[in-house]
Amino acid sequence: VKRALTHANRKPVIFRQLFDTSGSSTYTYLIADGPGGEAVLIDPVLEMVDRDLKLIDELGVKLKYAVNTHCHADHVTGSGAIKAARPEVRSIIAAASGAQADIKIGHGDRIEFGSMFLEVRATPGHTDGCLSYVCDDMVFTGDAVLIRGCGRTDFQQGSADRLYESVHTQIFSLPNDTIIYPAHDYKGHRCSTVGEEKALNPRLGSGKTKDEFVEIMANLNLPYPKKIDEALPKNMVCGIQEGMPTPA
Amino acid sequence: VKRALTHANRKPVIFRQLFDTSGSSTYTYLIADGPGGEAVLIDPVLEMVDRDLKLIDELGVKLKYAVNTHCHADHVTGSGAIKAARPEVRSIIAAASGAQADIKIGHGDRIEFGSMFLEVRATPGHTDGCLSYVCDDMVFTGDAVLIRGCGRTDFQQGSADRLYESVHTQIFSLPNDTIIYPAHDYKGHRCSTVGEEKALNPRLGSGKTKDEFVEIMANLNLPYPKKIDEALPKNMVCGIQEGMPTPA
Ligand SMILES: [Fe+2]
Ligand SMILES: [Fe+2]
Repeated sequence: VKRALTHANRKPVIFRQLFDTSGSSTYTYLIADGPGGEAVLIDPVLEMVDRDLKLIDELGVKLKYAVNTHCHADHVTGSGAIKAARPEVRSIIAAASGAQADIKIGHGDRIEFGSMFLEVRATPGHTDGCLSYVCDDMVFTGDAVLIRGCGRTDFQQGSADRLYESVHTQIFSLPNDTIIYPAHDYKGHRCSTVGEEKALNPRLGSGKTKDEFVEIMANLNLPYPKKIDEALPKNMVCGIQEGMPTPA
Repeated sequence: VKRALTHANRKPVIFRQLFDTSGSSTYTYLIADGPGGEAVLIDPVLEMVDRDLKLIDELGVKLKYAVNTHCHADHVTGSGAIKAARPEVRSIIAAASGAQADIKIGHGDRIEFGSMFLEVRATPGHTDGCLSYVCDDMVFTGDAVLIRGCGRTDFQQGSADRLYESVHTQIFSLPNDTIIYPAHDYKGHRCSTVGEEKALNPRLGSGKTKDEFVEIMANLNLPYPKKIDEALPKNMVCGIQEGMPTPA
């Protein structure tokens, strides 16, 4: 009998992919160093903070960091609301984002929780402060690599040239079976792999040159981002607003 | 350096959880015996068949079976449309469902693909023909166990008594770290575990007796299922309808 997915000495790492059902199609990721262990929450969304904190309590893990991949333009980060509810949690964002947070990080840093860590890789291009986080055989790419797509490069210091470089040097250089967990998906996909995006991403993979990518990105003709005027000022202060209600 | 999630001799099993973005919040699961290997698709949804077949082609796997956990009342199965597009695929459902399919199965059967298989467990109660599928450390529970919930028992031969027995003998008897992948979730959760639902499921777990469960289920006062009159007749013939357009 094959036990293809079972592994000896498996550490009971807790990993949960959560979806923003309130409209932004954002994925929030909970990773914890096993039951009772320390945890990080990547890209929490303001509207979903109650759900996330409930799950964290139910699983009995200790949230240490609310980690942002970048300063989002499409939704308000939950970092501020989480800190209001759990003052011991510290918020994290890239120093290069220019946004406020308890801890500002950059390429090569490590976000440690329990015996685990996220390796921080700078992947600018969608924004200046975009970070990707490598955790074992997973990479959390934010909007740098989406499944068969990528974040737009026409706002927030966007640069197609830089994004192409970032993805090719920092993401596509990972082993092919590294699982890509993006900040969003709009078609019901959950994840991809480095090998898959190298082969199939119609913008960044499939043999596209940097010139071709820049050309593609210059001609997307996307509409003005719906929530950008509301979300950006709030996210620049990590979602903390005066008088913001504390989650129950 | 801890490599908590990386395992020696890992077989590159392909596993994808897909979400119905067209409205039913159904999860469809693709499992394949590695690149180029045989695959099964659990609970395909009619509206998402094009997406699913595209992914199957992109990943280069061979779809062998379209597998249903039960005769759904909330959406039309994609089995028929998949067979129309890929005549080599065979549809599967429980004999006890009374529905048509190429292969009718029951408790103790195995659905084999490549070197892998799904172990079939009868978990009636939501419907007579509800099956759960165990694949290594994962169990696909259909509507028998949802995350912090369960399928309703007031239609389709539903029986709270039988559902309680099914879940306690067939699902909660699995190892605590078995990952539960349900047919639906409405709050942006993706998965749970047996240990978690035993402890936290407010209906079936957390020490609830069968009498308490029957009482809870008798007093849910749920509205009439929206799509049941359309979906059930179609699903009883595994989604095959005359004149149904073939997916592109
Ligand atoms: Fe973004
Ligand atoms: Fe159902």
